[in-house]
Amino acid sequence: MSHPAVPAIRSDASRAIGDPFGRVAPHLAALDRFMHQQAEQFEPEIRDMAAYCLDTSGKRLRPTLVFISGWSGEGVVDEALVRAAGVVEMVHLATLVHDDIMDRAELRRSRPTASRQFGPDAAVLLGDALFSQALHIASQFPTTEVCRLVSASTRRVCSGEIMQTLRRRDLNVSLAEYRRMIDLKTAELFRVSCYLGASLSAQATGFAEAADRFGHHLGIAYQIYDDLADFLGEEKKIGKTLGTDLATGKLTLPLMLLLERVPADERAAIIKSLREGGTPGLAASKQRMHELGIAAAVKQTIDDELATALAALAPHASLPAVPLMSQLAGILQQQVAGLPSAPISR
Amino acid sequence: MSHPAVPAIRSDASRAIGDPFGRVAPHLAALDRFMHQQAEQFEPEIRDMAAYCLDTSGKRLRPTLVFISGWSGEGVVDEALVRAAGVVEMVHLATLVHDDIMDRAELRRSRPTASRQFGPDAAVLLGDALFSQALHIASQFPTTEVCRLVSASTRRVCSGEIMQTLRRRDLNVSLAEYRRMIDLKTAELFRVSCYLGASLSAQATGFAEAADRFGHHLGIAYQIYDDLADFLGEEKKIGKTLGTDLATGKLTLPLMLLLERVPADERAAIIKSLREGGTPGLAASKQRMHELGIAAAVKQTIDDELATALAALAPHASLPAVPLMSQLAGILQQQVAGLPSAPISR
Repeated sequence: MSHPAVPAIRSDASRAIGDPFGRVAPHLAALDRFMHQQAEQFEPEIRDMAAYCLDTSGKRLRPTLVFISGWSGEGVVDEALVRAAGVVEMVHLATLVHDDIMDRAELRRSRPTASRQFGPDAAVLLGDALFSQALHIASQFPTTEVCRLVSASTRRVCSGEIMQTLRRRDLNVSLAEYRRMIDLKTAELFRVSCYLGASLSAQATGFAEAADRFGHHLGIAYQIYDDLADFLGEEKKIGKTLGTDLATGKLTLPLMLLLERVPADERAAIIKSLREGGTPGLAASKQRMHELGIAAAVKQTIDDELATALAALAPHASLPAVPLMSQLAGILQQQVAGLPSAPISR
Repeated sequence: MSHPAVPAIRSDASRAIGDPFGRVAPHLAALDRFMHQQAEQFEPEIRDMAAYCLDTSGKRLRPTLVFISGWSGEGVVDEALVRAAGVVEMVHLATLVHDDIMDRAELRRSRPTASRQFGPDAAVLLGDALFSQALHIASQFPTTEVCRLVSASTRRVCSGEIMQTLRRRDLNVSLAEYRRMIDLKTAELFRVSCYLGASLSAQATGFAEAADRFGHHLGIAYQIYDDLADFLGEEKKIGKTLGTDLATGKLTLPLMLLLERVPADERAAIIKSLREGGTPGLAASKQRMHELGIAAAVKQTIDDELATALAALAPHASLPAVPLMSQLAGILQQQVAGLPSAPISR
């Protein structure tokens, strides 16, 4: 894998750490077929709209987590894992439909967002229909466990997003609050993806709980990476806009550290420029970012999180799933290392 | 029960046919306690917002359907029925939260809507969290059946609402399309409420299917009644605004019949006035409504639907649930009869 100075990632970074080793390609192909079949489950009147949202062009990171956590050897594509992957991916796609309404986003994976394509009102309902269908798939397992886990996870994801929405433009978010938000909005679905994969394949006592911890810390690491990439990034031609967190008033770790590390007068100036409308005030801060070591500190935080994720797997090193899970964490580590140490082109 | 010329109903009419006979009062009290407990299940950061939406001041019509369809005798408050009632009510409350965003509604049950209170962005997510929690409660039954039924129902409700949203200001909706929309958006949750009540109490072979049919036709009748009340009504001081369907461009049965029955020139004038902004064009149509027998025709349609609903119960007349279900249909019949035969004050 190459590591260009400016990695061609998408903001959700799934492009970067989806299935780079190609091991789960047959699983992802099965998932694609499954998702296409799912579109048929929607009422005829909304089927095309649902199919539009059940886009399989993303890197399907959460499904990949299900597949690698449930890995029991090459060539085995377990139907239950495909179904579980379908559930978490559909929940994720539903949240994207609703996120894009809130962010007034125009593009998602280089296509108009559902909100843009069908209008925000229809998009609210379409997201609801996707959530419903995700839970409907979850109800097709023999027991209620998948429903129970996924519905609780979905509620927590929404809670995290509500917190983030209500704290927009609020520069007094504490580190603990930031962590709680990314735990809920991102790590939650990573966690449940890993737990489901591991528990459905029932490989060893205690492994599902270890996979759960792995997924949690991987999710935290991933979101901080995503926030750093957004903070450092420049807009790519494909996919969606980077640098949007500042523009939408989201306080993320890099900015929090910056505000923490600068002297009071500089802090006031940055806050003033943010309040006046976003990124321009940071135009001159590239040099300052270097001096203050912001990116380095954020990268360290991510690495610590990834180390914790990997430590959770240590007692299960002999299971076939573990090397793949470690590899995925390693790829994120490399991606993090490949990020520049200061904002690009500002 | 009194029948004033202008019944003091709310637009969703649950006020009118909730629990007028007081038979399910202990059940509704148990439901209230259950819903208050449910608020505690939400993440602390959004608990107050969830509690705001888990308003128990409505007449809880869908829960009432669960309770009477599962009725096995005075004094029995079955926990499973309370839980099922909680599920359908929470799904309903979630749809209201999202509906009010789309309708730009300011008031619901005489309080600011969630959208007004917390902003539309937070309201989208809050509705999602309510949907998730509803399915989470559904997952607490011993089998996946409740999850399976309720998630499919929720998807269908959303599909109906999407159709309605996309057909706003479209005056070419056919009767079949209108029926399909109300079947999905309203009758679906009535149907599943009755089915769940009957099947959870397992009273007799075939009764759950009969209750399902009853709920379906009652739901259709109820929505047409609601549409007629909206068409005929004047704004009440409490609750929400009536006459909003015309204002929001919703084509309902009364207006469809009016357009069908008037001569071409009059039709053109009505359409023109609707296109120019809503109700004023109908100001002079009170007399015309009488002459054309619009309200009478709509009332007949509702009565036919209620007769079909009641016929479904006939084979099970000996079950304790049936008299209560019949009584509820009868109350709706009386409410329909009590509506005026032409619009009020225009």
